[in-house]
Amino acid sequence: MSIKFKILSIVLVVVSFAFGQQPVDYVNPFIGTSNFGATNPGAIAPRGMASVSPFNVAVQKDAGWLSNPYVKQYNFLTGFTHVNLSGVGCPDLGVILTMPTTGDLKTNHMQYGTTYTDEVSKAGYYSVNLSKYNIKTELTATTRVGVSRYTFPAGESNILLNLGLGLTNEQGATVKVVSNTEIEGMRTVGSFCYNSPEQAYPVYFVAKFSSPADEFGAWKKPYKYNGVEAQWMGYNGKTRLMKGFTREVVGDSIGAYMRYNFKKKTTVEVKIGVSYVSIENARENLEKETANKNFDDVYATTKTAWNKTLSTVEVKGGSADDKTIFYTALYHTQIHPNTLNDYNGDYPEIATGKIGNTKGTRYTVFSLWDTYRNYHPLMSTLYPEQQSNMVNSMLSMYKENGWLPKWELNSTETFTMVGDPAPVVIADTYLRGIRDFNVEEAYAAMVKGATELDNNPLRPGNKEYWKNGYLSVNGGAEGPVSTTEEYNIADFAISQLAKELGKKADYKKFYNQSLSYKKLFDSKLKLLRPKNSDGSWYTPFDPYKGANFEKNVGYIEGNAWQYAFMVPHDIKGLMKLMGGKKQFVSHLDYIFDNNQFDMANEPDIAYPFLYNYSKGDEWKTQKRVQQLINTYFTNTPSGLPGNDDTGTMSAWVVYAMMGIYPVSPATPVYTITTPRFSSVTIHLNTTYYKNKTLIIKRTGNVNGKINSIRLDNKDLKGYFVSHKNLLNGTVLEVRLE
Amino acid sequence: MSIKFKILSIVLVVVSFAFGQQPVDYVNPFIGTSNFGATNPGAIAPRGMASVSPFNVAVQKDAGWLSNPYVKQYNFLTGFTHVNLSGVGCPDLGVILTMPTTGDLKTNHMQYGTTYTDEVSKAGYYSVNLSKYNIKTELTATTRVGVSRYTFPAGESNILLNLGLGLTNEQGATVKVVSNTEIEGMRTVGSFCYNSPEQAYPVYFVAKFSSPADEFGAWKKPYKYNGVEAQWMGYNGKTRLMKGFTREVVGDSIGAYMRYNFKKKTTVEVKIGVSYVSIENARENLEKETANKNFDDVYATTKTAWNKTLSTVEVKGGSADDKTIFYTALYHTQIHPNTLNDYNGDYPEIATGKIGNTKGTRYTVFSLWDTYRNYHPLMSTLYPEQQSNMVNSMLSMYKENGWLPKWELNSTETFTMVGDPAPVVIADTYLRGIRDFNVEEAYAAMVKGATELDNNPLRPGNKEYWKNGYLSVNGGAEGPVSTTEEYNIADFAISQLAKELGKKADYKKFYNQSLSYKKLFDSKLKLLRPKNSDGSWYTPFDPYKGANFEKNVGYIEGNAWQYAFMVPHDIKGLMKLMGGKKQFVSHLDYIFDNNQFDMANEPDIAYPFLYNYSKGDEWKTQKRVQQLINTYFTNTPSGLPGNDDTGTMSAWVVYAMMGIYPVSPATPVYTITTPRFSSVTIHLNTTYYKNKTLIIKRTGNVNGKINSIRLDNKDLKGYFVSHKNLLNGTVLEVRLE
Repeated sequence: MSIKFKILSIVLVVVSFAFGQQPVDYVNPFIGTSNFGATNPGAIAPRGMASVSPFNVAVQKDAGWLSNPYVKQYNFLTGFTHVNLSGVGCPDLGVILTMPTTGDLKTNHMQYGTTYTDEVSKAGYYSVNLSKYNIKTELTATTRVGVSRYTFPAGESNILLNLGLGLTNEQGATVKVVSNTEIEGMRTVGSFCYNSPEQAYPVYFVAKFSSPADEFGAWKKPYKYNGVEAQWMGYNGKTRLMKGFTREVVGDSIGAYMRYNFKKKTTVEVKIGVSYVSIENARENLEKETANKNFDDVYATTKTAWNKTLSTVEVKGGSADDKTIFYTALYHTQIHPNTLNDYNGDYPEIATGKIGNTKGTRYTVFSLWDTYRNYHPLMSTLYPEQQSNMVNSMLSMYKENGWLPKWELNSTETFTMVGDPAPVVIADTYLRGIRDFNVEEAYAAMVKGATELDNNPLRPGNKEYWKNGYLSVNGGAEGPVSTTEEYNIADFAISQLAKELGKKADYKKFYNQSLSYKKLFDSKLKLLRPKNSDGSWYTPFDPYKGANFEKNVGYIEGNAWQYAFMVPHDIKGLMKLMGGKKQFVSHLDYIFDNNQFDMANEPDIAYPFLYNYSKGDEWKTQKRVQQLINTYFTNTPSGLPGNDDTGTMSAWVVYAMMGIYPVSPATPVYTITTPRFSSVTIHLNTTYYKNKTLIIKRTGNVNGKINSIRLDNKDLKGYFVSHKNLLNGTVLEVRLE
Repeated sequence: MSIKFKILSIVLVVVSFAFGQQPVDYVNPFIGTSNFGATNPGAIAPRGMASVSPFNVAVQKDAGWLSNPYVKQYNFLTGFTHVNLSGVGCPDLGVILTMPTTGDLKTNHMQYGTTYTDEVSKAGYYSVNLSKYNIKTELTATTRVGVSRYTFPAGESNILLNLGLGLTNEQGATVKVVSNTEIEGMRTVGSFCYNSPEQAYPVYFVAKFSSPADEFGAWKKPYKYNGVEAQWMGYNGKTRLMKGFTREVVGDSIGAYMRYNFKKKTTVEVKIGVSYVSIENARENLEKETANKNFDDVYATTKTAWNKTLSTVEVKGGSADDKTIFYTALYHTQIHPNTLNDYNGDYPEIATGKIGNTKGTRYTVFSLWDTYRNYHPLMSTLYPEQQSNMVNSMLSMYKENGWLPKWELNSTETFTMVGDPAPVVIADTYLRGIRDFNVEEAYAAMVKGATELDNNPLRPGNKEYWKNGYLSVNGGAEGPVSTTEEYNIADFAISQLAKELGKKADYKKFYNQSLSYKKLFDSKLKLLRPKNSDGSWYTPFDPYKGANFEKNVGYIEGNAWQYAFMVPHDIKGLMKLMGGKKQFVSHLDYIFDNNQFDMANEPDIAYPFLYNYSKGDEWKTQKRVQQLINTYFTNTPSGLPGNDDTGTMSAWVVYAMMGIYPVSPATPVYTITTPRFSSVTIHLNTTYYKNKTLIIKRTGNVNGKINSIRLDNKDLKGYFVSHKNLLNGTVLEVRLE
């Protein structure tokens, strides 16, 4: 080999590495930023506590129910927020807002806001050009620090730290300019879904600026006072600037600023460390994660982290858009639950008011009504260490709070939605073989939640549920049919764990109770139907009422059709009730063909896979799933069917595109359909699984029908495979016509 | 001597000690709590940073200009405030409010407020019975800690810490329940006189409760939001209780509470340490000053401290009321300036935003336009160590701020009133022989303030003043005649110090300038009169306009008559201008006889002593001064002529009752009139003065005329004695007919 050739080889390898598309390169964070997806295109590290999102909803946010800091089609940008929720249905966080401007200092966002162009969003990176100011803004983040880089034109420039404006409905902040390169403070957030404002809590921050400001200060806009004294109050209801001020400022509408006079085009980097514990911890987070690192260093590290996370699954075949949809969905599953603990392990405990300390990761943002169905099974499969940490976080909450979580947000229990989802997640995790948690404690926790009859915050109406087997329309519990189904699913999960732990009596008790939904089955309608507490049917009854989040008696965020099959643990029993296979499939078809299927909400998201329970009808699952992917999951801002629900919709499409789906949580079994890709390689975590990799292969046309399914060259009987068999296998081959 | 007799003697001594009235026993803090005196009857240690005052102005405070937390004739009490101003004309502080209640928890002061009975107020002690609750409340204080003792009846009881309600016009606070015996937080205060709200600053506190609460929590009343979201906000504009909450709460209308259920009548003590630096320092202040001390211990220590301070002057003769008036006035001179620094020496610097540290006392609340006239000369006489610390505090302010103070409040310069009073105070102090400060630095500071012609925050209009010798009505400076007189007084003070320091050229320059008031003397009216900038008289001109604080052209808080003699350094020159002794005395008489004398304000308070400049008319000083004391200074809540002006009115009556008055500041000379008491013993500070005591004796009827004045048995010629001669003397004897 000549020297020339050697050099050429090296060049070729470098070029191929440089231009080869890595999983991280397929992420398009704009997906879900329209059509109520409620994701944002800001920069975040995997499961980051901090994120930096463009905030362009200032005008619209107070005119209705708006749950995200950014909507693609809006165009008036008022800053960049440093703690954000992704894919949720309620407003909260969206605070600690920075904004670079030029010229005179303006602190009112309606005055300083601007249109923008040249948006770029990647995993861990966002950039935009602010039209009014010609400032290029770039964002990146570590786990607990948001990092911004502003490229200012020559002249007077400002960096605002606005603590008034935010997405949360809570108000109240403090701020203190520490020096010409540092600002510290806190902002109150909370009242997610307008619930529990009594629990509103602080998020602390420390902001460091790479260039010393030529001038700095704070501002405060006090509320307008209407009494006699108003005549003497110079700033009554008006913003007052406090130039050079270095004392603590407190109020609802306050901020601080750094001001510069640049002789030439200049770049300033701003790092904002956050903490839910204290300013000191925010400062330590900032220092430990970003000291001596500039913007480019931070972005490089975060990009590498994203690529490593996303490379857990490698796909081949499929279009570029398919890959973008897949990897963006996988990216969206790695945002929530997110890290709550500081670098030093400190975190606010739930309910105790104390500061706890963890050695692992304390996760937060558990939207469990959404995520128990498919998200946590997916995490158990792809990221079992994360899932283990999540279960341990849930158990810590139980220890702190006395109850497992329902919809936990930054150590507050928001009690959003219904049901008792934590037992399902924990039992499912254990049954999938992830067992590095105290299962007896977990079992005790779930039994407590399932069986306390009075003053049970997790299960309203539990007394009636255990007495009659169902919740009645006049029992006081919300959406009694939906909630009965949810409790059944939880009781089934407990029964399965009881069985595994050898608790036979409990197994029997909870399993029997898990079938109590049958008492609500109206054999004439062949649907579950609300009942009165005396056992009579609730009338008049309209099974169509309740679609599109319309309020109705009996159901939560859905109607009788959408809840008709939500007994995933007893599909065969339901089939029998409905009158057999034919009636079952006819009902399913009716739902899909008559616009009763709602891809945007969780109760029915497993339904397209239910045809697999009817031998000979499996092709309908194959067909419907591909149709749903094509219709609802696209490489566009509106490419999610609705709220991402902290990754649940994304988990659905990740599974669907891999060709498997965990059709009944706490039943460690996958049902199989057409993989979108010709090959899906899952790099398994060998701490939890025997094999290093599992490959799911598709041969034949993606739109064809499945002819056969083979696991390690053995034909599968039917369209189901146990979690254990699948993950102990090496190749699942799905052959299509 | 028999044993019996011996025992009897001892008993007699003990009895006489126990029942003997000490100076401290003559203090009646209710004096000045009505008739706009603006003092309060709360508990305070000498020159304390903290004080605890009943707060009974909640209903009235927002209906007008109200500058004190308590007015005697009001009757609706809503708590006890822990930082307060005494005798000032503008609202500020009056925050960190505690309130004991019984029964259900109520946080709205209009609901929990109560009438009260059995008020007792002494130096360092206040008690009251709260009618609605039958709770006895007692208050005392150390320098930096307010201590309360609540005696609750059996049953449910609450201690509220209300951080919303306050006298200041600033809003904003944070609070955090640390445990069932401790609460910490901060409250924003500032915008004294509705000025400089940009400088609003924090006061921090730590509250410790002697009994662990059975329940605790915080509350917050958010502002009312009127947008679409209001329908979803459960607590929109309504107070929300946060039971058991231990995170930081921030807002304008917030508080925290401790709740108890007492089986029997129970006493709880609450200690609140304050600091203008940090929560940590507030906690240290609390611990260093009150750890292991209960209410009784604290009160005993503070009472002893008061008695020691007040015993500097011992009076004999005079009625019990005379003694009460005298010692209460002396007490009122020991409230402001007060301590700003924490126990560890930390204090917020002025203007720099930094935290400084002092070895001596850093004083604050310098109402210098008021106090330069008589208050600081009195402090130099009675408490030279305090006066020295005050001058050093003023010089530290100069070092921090670049300017001497004008009306300094907690390290903010409020720029209240006019003139340039600091040089007068400093020169006067030096000339009275108190010299333990850097006089050259002080001189440089006063010259800077006196001579900077542009952008001089202390002397608006200084350019015109030096150019023309007076400020014109169209020069932009407020009250141009008054302010010209003030600048003259300051320049005279500087000239006297220059002379003492051997700076002959400066002496000449400033002395000449100090007589420039003559340019405003209208020889027709024989009054000072406003001029236009072109030198012509301002017309039409009404010399009566401006009495009773009425706004007018030319004068500040007064009219031409009230300012007619305010050139104390050049009374002889003025006499000449007026046409001699006769015209001078006739003018003086006119003022007193025609209701143009205002005892309630500073410009003319030396006037009753001016008859001493006219040989043969001194009896008029004697007569007028006794009349003024009898009329305006009484042992009643309305026993001050108006605002105490941080002790200036009290200093007037202390001097007047001792029979001496410093008629021209920076001229270390006293003029002499009838002492109220038959003997006044001043225990001199021997660090500064040669003798241990000076006795001022009166013989003859207090309403008689003075026949002769003798110092150490030598007849004085005239009615003046130098500071040096007087304080080097031992007995000043004033003989009346």
